[in-house]
Amino acid sequence: MSDEALLGRLREISVEAGWAALVERGYPNCFIGGLQVVHPDVPMVGRARTLRYVPFRQDLAAQVEREGPQLNKRAVEECAAGDVLVVDAFGTCDAGFAGDIVLTRFVRRGGAGVVVDGSIRDLTFLRKIALPVYTRATHAAASTERIIGVEQNVPVQIAGVAVLPGDYLLGDAEGVLVIPAGLAEEIVATAAATDDKEIFIRKKLEQGATLYDAYPPNEAILNEYRQSKQ
Amino acid sequence: MSDEALLGRLREISVEAGWAALVERGYPNCFIGGLQVVHPDVPMVGRARTLRYVPFRQDLAAQVEREGPQLNKRAVEECAAGDVLVVDAFGTCDAGFAGDIVLTRFVRRGGAGVVVDGSIRDLTFLRKIALPVYTRATHAAASTERIIGVEQNVPVQIAGVAVLPGDYLLGDAEGVLVIPAGLAEEIVATAAATDDKEIFIRKKLEQGATLYDAYPPNEAILNEYRQSKQ
Amino acid sequence: MSDEALLGRLREISVEAGWAALVERGYPNCFIGGLQVVHPDVPMVGRARTLRYVPFRQDLAAQVEREGPQLNKRAVEECAAGDVLVVDAFGTCDAGFAGDIVLTRFVRRGGAGVVVDGSIRDLTFLRKIALPVYTRATHAAASTERIIGVEQNVPVQIAGVAVLPGDYLLGDAEGVLVIPAGLAEEIVATAAATDDKEIFIRKKLEQGATLYDAYPPNEAILNEYRQSKQ
Amino acid sequence: MSDEALLGRLREISVEAGWAALVERGYPNCFIGGLQVVHPDVPMVGRARTLRYVPFRQDLAAQVEREGPQLNKRAVEECAAGDVLVVDAFGTCDAGFAGDIVLTRFVRRGGAGVVVDGSIRDLTFLRKIALPVYTRATHAAASTERIIGVEQNVPVQIAGVAVLPGDYLLGDAEGVLVIPAGLAEEIVATAAATDDKEIFIRKKLEQGATLYDAYPPNEAILNEYRQSKQ
Amino acid sequence: MSDEALLGRLREISVEAGWAALVERGYPNCFIGGLQVVHPDVPMVGRARTLRYVPFRQDLAAQVEREGPQLNKRAVEECAAGDVLVVDAFGTCDAGFAGDIVLTRFVRRGGAGVVVDGSIRDLTFLRKIALPVYTRATHAAASTERIIGVEQNVPVQIAGVAVLPGDYLLGDAEGVLVIPAGLAEEIVATAAATDDKEIFIRKKLEQGATLYDAYPPNEAILNEYRQSKQ
Amino acid sequence: MSDEALLGRLREISVEAGWAALVERGYPNCFIGGLQVVHPDVPMVGRARTLRYVPFRQDLAAQVEREGPQLNKRAVEECAAGDVLVVDAFGTCDAGFAGDIVLTRFVRRGGAGVVVDGSIRDLTFLRKIALPVYTRATHAAASTERIIGVEQNVPVQIAGVAVLPGDYLLGDAEGVLVIPAGLAEEIVATAAATDDKEIFIRKKLEQGATLYDAYPPNEAILNEYRQSKQ
Repeated sequence: MSDEALLGRLREISVEAGWAALVERGYPNCFIGGLQVVHPDVPMVGRARTLRYVPFRQDLAAQVEREGPQLNKRAVEECAAGDVLVVDAFGTCDAGFAGDIVLTRFVRRGGAGVVVDGSIRDLTFLRKIALPVYTRATHAAASTERIIGVEQNVPVQIAGVAVLPGDYLLGDAEGVLVIPAGLAEEIVATAAATDDKEIFIRKKLEQGATLYDAYPPNEAILNEYRQSKQ
Repeated sequence: MSDEALLGRLREISVEAGWAALVERGYPNCFIGGLQVVHPDVPMVGRARTLRYVPFRQDLAAQVEREGPQLNKRAVEECAAGDVLVVDAFGTCDAGFAGDIVLTRFVRRGGAGVVVDGSIRDLTFLRKIALPVYTRATHAAASTERIIGVEQNVPVQIAGVAVLPGDYLLGDAEGVLVIPAGLAEEIVATAAATDDKEIFIRKKLEQGATLYDAYPPNEAILNEYRQSKQ
Repeated sequence: MSDEALLGRLREISVEAGWAALVERGYPNCFIGGLQVVHPDVPMVGRARTLRYVPFRQDLAAQVEREGPQLNKRAVEECAAGDVLVVDAFGTCDAGFAGDIVLTRFVRRGGAGVVVDGSIRDLTFLRKIALPVYTRATHAAASTERIIGVEQNVPVQIAGVAVLPGDYLLGDAEGVLVIPAGLAEEIVATAAATDDKEIFIRKKLEQGATLYDAYPPNEAILNEYRQSKQ
Repeated sequence: MSDEALLGRLREISVEAGWAALVERGYPNCFIGGLQVVHPDVPMVGRARTLRYVPFRQDLAAQVEREGPQLNKRAVEECAAGDVLVVDAFGTCDAGFAGDIVLTRFVRRGGAGVVVDGSIRDLTFLRKIALPVYTRATHAAASTERIIGVEQNVPVQIAGVAVLPGDYLLGDAEGVLVIPAGLAEEIVATAAATDDKEIFIRKKLEQGATLYDAYPPNEAILNEYRQSKQ
Repeated sequence: MSDEALLGRLREISVEAGWAALVERGYPNCFIGGLQVVHPDVPMVGRARTLRYVPFRQDLAAQVEREGPQLNKRAVEECAAGDVLVVDAFGTCDAGFAGDIVLTRFVRRGGAGVVVDGSIRDLTFLRKIALPVYTRATHAAASTERIIGVEQNVPVQIAGVAVLPGDYLLGDAEGVLVIPAGLAEEIVATAAATDDKEIFIRKKLEQGATLYDAYPPNEAILNEYRQSKQ
Repeated sequence: MSDEALLGRLREISVEAGWAALVERGYPNCFIGGLQVVHPDVPMVGRARTLRYVPFRQDLAAQVEREGPQLNKRAVEECAAGDVLVVDAFGTCDAGFAGDIVLTRFVRRGGAGVVVDGSIRDLTFLRKIALPVYTRATHAAASTERIIGVEQNVPVQIAGVAVLPGDYLLGDAEGVLVIPAGLAEEIVATAAATDDKEIFIRKKLEQGATLYDAYPPNEAILNEYRQSKQ
């Protein structure tokens, strides 16, 4: 399946069904919760591009600067359409790793979303554009002399969940599901099937079935479901 | 007063006036705050049906299973219209005690709301239906192998407040007021009177009265208020 | 510049540009974040009137009472139009320093906003009026026998930031910028210039410029910007 | 094995080896950490007697009182020698469930320790006696009008771990291991074997072996270990 | 009673008995818990001298400096023997309000202890001297450019408890009891009587009495106690 | 100066004087506080060897395993005498990155200490050996299936402070000072001078000098100090 097709199908499954499919395959810790969701009504799908920050230190900053532009700029200029910036900023609450200017460019390059275990600035601006943003906090401060980016595309930690470069991400009002790239097709297929069946079960419940009969479905409801699929 | 009438009158008082009436009667710790309010514009009134969860344990789960269906299902199938599920899940942030399917059935049975010191899943679904939900957190994970329900209709603890089965509950954008059943009529009457007087005071303030004169009201304003009631 | 003119110009700058101007002048700790923003779409500008609360104590309350009306009432009756109540209530989460009645009067007197490191009550009411409110928490409880106001117009602490009486405040969806009165004109001028230039940069980025070229702007873009100003 | 013999053998294993044996058998969540350890040098072994508290409420207290003495007194008077009081007080930090007097009696009756997700009072006294105490907090306040005991010998939650009545408990400076009664003999045997082997490995490391060779042990070291056992 | 005599008698009562006497008189919130106790085996008695800090701000610092020496120095040079520094530093964890030098002078002047809702530095030094210290945190940083003292001898907030200048303080391994000066004699007398009786009860329990008989004591034990006092 | 000589001199300065010397040179954020100190009476000096962990993930673990032994083992086998393991485990509280066996080998290889923003296991063992350990938490769990080490000798984050490989570390009862390698000689010299002068000041204060005269020292005391040095 092409990457584009995969992102398209990802857009159609629920985070919960994806979660269940991942747990079955031995990935119990794949959901990022507890972050502030700037646009709860704008879902997010994309591929992870990871960044890692540490607290600012003068000598480290000098060394990083010698190596090229700041990490957030580099990540944005090097990203592909459909990328999500996944920023491990050790949960810092008082230094935004990026703001309106950097993210304007990111949107122009086709950026699909931002997930920060740390802070972002310019919330007033972000509320006006459709970019999905998940963040620990928002703050007016820039990163200058507070945090410094040191690595790109390494495994990172976000809210207690590991994210690897290239992971597929699916975000909704609740949080972000992290799907290893190699499993994505399989997860999407399993989750779509689950969603389909659960929508049927919900319909039965709306019509008056009990949970005892419908969840999990008894033989009769299961047959009815199967027939509805023919 | 019938239960239905009581729920109706409850819908007309403010949480703050109810709080004050309860404090006067020796119930200073009757307001549940600090939870996430899924529908701040949908008030909640109902009767408490309590559930208690503990962390999952294999042997405990086996024993509970032998005794019948899972606690959340049992609570939903046994509840009456107007019941609110009050779930003590010890503040857990990574395991939803229930999600779209169980709550679809709950709505069908006339469920009036959910209050969880713990998590709920399927927030995207919950945002679309009018069921009032107060919760510590939301998470994609199901309860399986994370938490397990052990008791129904016992006293529970929600955000530092005791809730007893049968308590009347009144929720708004701020949180949930817990009213012992035996006091409910009295509280509703007192609170309605307080609200009525305070609306009058607010009107006086909007017209230019000072707080020194109007709050508490001096004799003149009090007389004016009494006359307005005749 | 008249106070009114200053408040008017303050309304036109962004919190982030103001933050940067303050940092340049040696005020790195001037942004109040992490509070609940009741009206994220209603900006706040005004002057700080500070109040300080401590936990309730019977003997202290008796002494305070002998000296006159409660602190929140006094502050409201003594405030000028354009004042913002800045309340240091040591982060308390279960006692509102004020509610609908006191704040109705505050609005009538031209109050411009409320910033509380503590709680406020009557959230349902506050959601319906346009008064900007920043608060640590909301709770149904009144201050009675929980907290007590002891001082007005002294330096206070809000979310780790010092606020002095007379400071200018600028609030948006993100939080509140604290501007020392003596610097306000200068900050407003610098910030307006920053905003103007950054809007130009954003436009260039929307047109396809890279961050490497535009942020900071290279000579060509800088010239273009300067010419656009003539 | 007699209960006494089991407690004796439990005293000889390490918490870590017991933890590993429990994980192997499907009990990954069996260690209570994060509590204050009053006597880090006094190990604890015993059987769990659970108590459950909720926040105080006048009507609930009246009802509980009608049923007999307070829960902490009842638990102490009904306990057997070797019992550990395991108290779920929902993490409360400002109300001790018991103090010097109740615990003096508990010691007299052969009580083996106390584990509280909540508070205990009389720390100065507790520091002078050898009773092992694990607690979330200590506070001078009694439980009166703050918390109230409602149940004994039900499953409870302590620091995110489920404890069932009759569980075996093993405490050291780090925290408390929770061992389901039915597994205790098996766990003790497995853990003792692990400890024995790991002490041998530590000795090899002290003599200069590398981790690559000794942990896990290679064939040569394993043989040496086996011979040492003959 | 002279102040000296009072401090002497205070030294003989338990924190818990003092707490109970204060609650009876309408002071339920009089115990400071949750702080780090540097010398759990060194009790503290003294009178409160309060200091209030806010976050550092350049203009505020300049103004304070014009008025005289820094607050911590002034407080130490002005204190009387038996004074306890009670420092409201809004819980800051990364800036010590004082360290070895200031506290060496404080000890020389007869200082009786330090209670900080904030930080202290030079813990290694403090561990070697017998000054009782209760603190939220310890940190190597000085106060410079982090916090600034603004007031002395005003009501302050420590860990959720109000402290007034002149209050009597009694500290043990658990925390600090705050006694309004006007009540101190009475509290000391009541608490001493409680302690005396409870020691008798503990003795009875050690001899085998049950809690049902001895706590509260039945008529027989009460008589025995009374006779023991003759 | 040889590395050995430097470590020797480091052992003689106070953390506070070192902190002040670093602040003067533009390193305000160089002290790690807030960790549990296993041996408050055993100072630590050494060089940082950093390790970085993320939450466990099956596919990541498989990939890491293909590359060689686990990170903690590799770090220990590759370390030099005088190295301190500095472990960024994102603050995890329920999975020890290492325990008695790995650390026994570390001690044998001349390891100088451990600093973990995360957990360590086998506290009972660690309390018996003289290895300085600073840790966020202790827990019986091993790292297996909880956390996984991904990098060595990269910049890491510990309690909000950046640590670089090769930094010199100085730990006492309070926490750990982080000294960039290139500055270490200079810092040690400056700090030793500060300590020397401050010990003199403390002596003057013990003899009755006031803070106004001695801190900072006036001309007379300064002269006296200078003469004492001749």
